[in-house]
Amino acid sequence: MAHATKQQLMEHGVEMLLIRGYNDLGIAALLEATRIPKGSFYHHFRSKQDYALQVIDLYMEEVHAGLESCLGDTSRPPLERIRYFFEVSEENYRTQGYMGCLLGGLGQELSGVSEVFRQKVEECLDQIAGRLADCLHEAIRRAELPPEANPEKLAELLVNCWEGAALRTRLRRDPAPLRDMLDFYFAAAAVPRE
Amino acid sequence: MAHATKQQLMEHGVEMLLIRGYNDLGIAALLEATRIPKGSFYHHFRSKQDYALQVIDLYMEEVHAGLESCLGDTSRPPLERIRYFFEVSEENYRTQGYMGCLLGGLGQELSGVSEVFRQKVEECLDQIAGRLADCLHEAIRRAELPPEANPEKLAELLVNCWEGAALRTRLRRDPAPLRDMLDFYFAAAAVPRE
Repeated sequence: MAHATKQQLMEHGVEMLLIRGYNDLGIAALLEATRIPKGSFYHHFRSKQDYALQVIDLYMEEVHAGLESCLGDTSRPPLERIRYFFEVSEENYRTQGYMGCLLGGLGQELSGVSEVFRQKVEECLDQIAGRLADCLHEAIRRAELPPEANPEKLAELLVNCWEGAALRTRLRRDPAPLRDMLDFYFAAAAVPRE
Repeated sequence: MAHATKQQLMEHGVEMLLIRGYNDLGIAALLEATRIPKGSFYHHFRSKQDYALQVIDLYMEEVHAGLESCLGDTSRPPLERIRYFFEVSEENYRTQGYMGCLLGGLGQELSGVSEVFRQKVEECLDQIAGRLADCLHEAIRRAELPPEANPEKLAELLVNCWEGAALRTRLRRDPAPLRDMLDFYFAAAAVPRE
């Protein structure tokens, strides 16, 4: 039961932090929305910061599960797997009302003042880029990318450009910037098909 | 004198909003940093929101001046002018400690809860993309871009990818993501030189 309460607070946190950001989210509002007593919150979390960091961990669990299932699907060629991962992400954004990416949101809001959040978000983006880079290495082996391509750099570029497109999606409540970015990126990076 | 006070508050606001974001910036802290009395603040600004919107206008004045001087320099070829504009922006970021872009920061933080800021930031990014698109049209006429290129779409892509790279620059306090993005973009968009 304790675990269910914690899980509920964190799941709600993904949604509320995505919409409101960190500083605008009051713990009182969270407790009211979830109808969970204050004592329960402080039983599970040391502070609001501890809470938000654990919400990021929950968010990343879902990201890693998505990377695992999309990039691990070896029935598809590597670049298609990567594109599929981002299409799944776009679908998640849709169900959230196109609010963009929690990492981009908290990274922008907090990294000027909080070394803890700055490092946390940077670490998360770096992990995602690392997984993508592994798949891009495979794309080189399968001649989907030119042999001189730099998978680490290309993976980072993809993550960064995605974050920019996600911001625009958030501003417009529209997925088009995400799709346009992926189209441009894959057309530019890939070896042209015969 | 009144105008000088207002200007001082706004210039300080660019710096403080860039570092702290909107919700974490207290008017009291701003007044303390500038040693300006509270009454003066409310003489010039109706509210914190009004203040931040006017700080964005000041920020955009500088952006437009940069666009004007870089894109208007017809002694350079069009794509070089665009690259130069972003190099000047990178140099501004450097002097600010690589805090990224105020539009991306406030757009991420506030567009989930504030229709006013959502529209304002979207409008600003759209204006920048519009100026870049004009220059990209010229790049087509000068055969720097293929004739089938879509300047409006390419300009928007550039703005969005830049914002993503600026977030990463903010997370790392490092300009490399900006440069990598520009290298990738121009190599992908431009007609290869003989």
